Amino acid sequence: MRWIRFEHQGATHYGRLEGEDVIAVNGAPWDAPQPTGQRHKLSAVRLLPPVVPPTFYAAGLNYTQHLKHYANLGGANVPSKPDIGYRAVNALIGHEDPIVIPRDAGPKVHYEGELVVVIGKKAKHLTPQNALSCVFGYTIGNDMSERDWQKADRTMWRSKNTDTWKPMGPWIETDLDLAAAQTRVRVNGKQIIEFPTGEMLFDVPTYISAMSRYLTLWPGDVIWMGTEGVSPDLKAGDVVEIEITGLGTLRNPLRAEA
Amino acid sequence: MRWIRFEHQGATHYGRLEGEDVIAVNGAPWDAPQPTGQRHKLSAVRLLPPVVPPTFYAAGLNYTQHLKHYANLGGANVPSKPDIGYRAVNALIGHEDPIVIPRDAGPKVHYEGELVVVIGKKAKHLTPQNALSCVFGYTIGNDMSERDWQKADRTMWRSKNTDTWKPMGPWIETDLDLAAAQTRVRVNGKQIIEFPTGEMLFDVPTYISAMSRYLTLWPGDVIWMGTEGVSPDLKAGDVVEIEITGLGTLRNPLRAEA
Repeated sequence: MRWIRFEHQGATHYGRLEGEDVIAVNGAPWDAPQPTGQRHKLSAVRLLPPVVPPTFYAAGLNYTQHLKHYANLGGANVPSKPDIGYRAVNALIGHEDPIVIPRDAGPKVHYEGELVVVIGKKAKHLTPQNALSCVFGYTIGNDMSERDWQKADRTMWRSKNTDTWKPMGPWIETDLDLAAAQTRVRVNGKQIIEFPTGEMLFDVPTYISAMSRYLTLWPGDVIWMGTEGVSPDLKAGDVVEIEITGLGTLRNPLRAEA
Repeated sequence: MRWIRFEHQGATHYGRLEGEDVIAVNGAPWDAPQPTGQRHKLSAVRLLPPVVPPTFYAAGLNYTQHLKHYANLGGANVPSKPDIGYRAVNALIGHEDPIVIPRDAGPKVHYEGELVVVIGKKAKHLTPQNALSCVFGYTIGNDMSERDWQKADRTMWRSKNTDTWKPMGPWIETDLDLAAAQTRVRVNGKQIIEFPTGEMLFDVPTYISAMSRYLTLWPGDVIWMGTEGVSPDLKAGDVVEIEITGLGTLRNPLRAEA
């Protein structure tokens, strides 16, 4: 099943996709949502990030080639355990919303195409065996990064959390076969990379069980699972598409700051 | 004026303090709140964190002695600019709520007593001169930290964001004279340190103007401004009080994980 969060005539709702139709609901998908009685064409609504997380988690370095590249540059050590990181809600945008490049950004503006886990149940002290019991579904994230800032700054505040730099969507898929999924990234229609979505250094159950030793996971929390490979330098006018097979495609154009 | 967020008979509201009374409102303090018609004794309600921020910012190293200590230990460089960091909503608790120490935490469990800025208006591209125009008020935070984890882990996920490790409160004060304020920290009633709250490496207008070059600040966002000095090692049974004169006192007991 696919769930969107959308705006229509100034009101924001979650909605269940039924073919090309949206069945609007009151309440969150993981919280006994009730149909509002309204039905829209998907093409007639504005997609929003499919959830605004209470806490926005991100795994960072979690795929072999991406890690090797930055380790060789001296900018990363190979993680020995799943230490989760964070991103910021201010930076979230939805499918098709423009990613705005600040005027003073350097040339190394990069995409990172990521699987996003959406939590649906309050959870603590899970094991790798039962960790997936708190997962509601999956969506797609683009962890946009400016590599000069990432190197120069003490934190990742502007290198990764500049406004509009966290596209997420287009929807939440509750029935993803992660073992079969491939992530494909295209820039201006040209495929840059394809990789098995599930071949992570630390997989979803490993991260969730480690995190939930100390942290309560709450409905709506998201965990971005990291990316593979290395992005080319992007510029205004480019369009980035991140496809996860069986899930969908997140597409965002890049624009220069006015 | 002082604003609390509280629970009473299962319902959560903001409330305005009038002496020892709470005037309950619907809506957030910065968003034209309307009285519900209910009035409670302050002693009869349960204080919650005074806001649940959309984005939870933290300055980290921002006072001279604290910085020198960790710089001398080789664990910190002197910040050359205000690079903001992040903390996590899962870890927030209110005044008097217990801080729970995980069973496997090391001995270096430390408080950090901090001024917290509460944003009241959507803002971007502020200057140091007009930065305070987006500030609604101030509260107090205790940025509890486990120093062995902070050193060993790639991120600060469990060293600072373990459940219950971000006490915030007791209320938001809209009329703080920051230049006159002193921060005093007491453990089990004994004062450990007193320092001028406003004598920061990078002050509130400097942080806000720098952040808002790239980030939109939203109503309810909080910025924790860092701490001075070095905490003694804390243990279950201790009680930490952080007082900011003219604002109030945030008090929390420490407990061992069951």
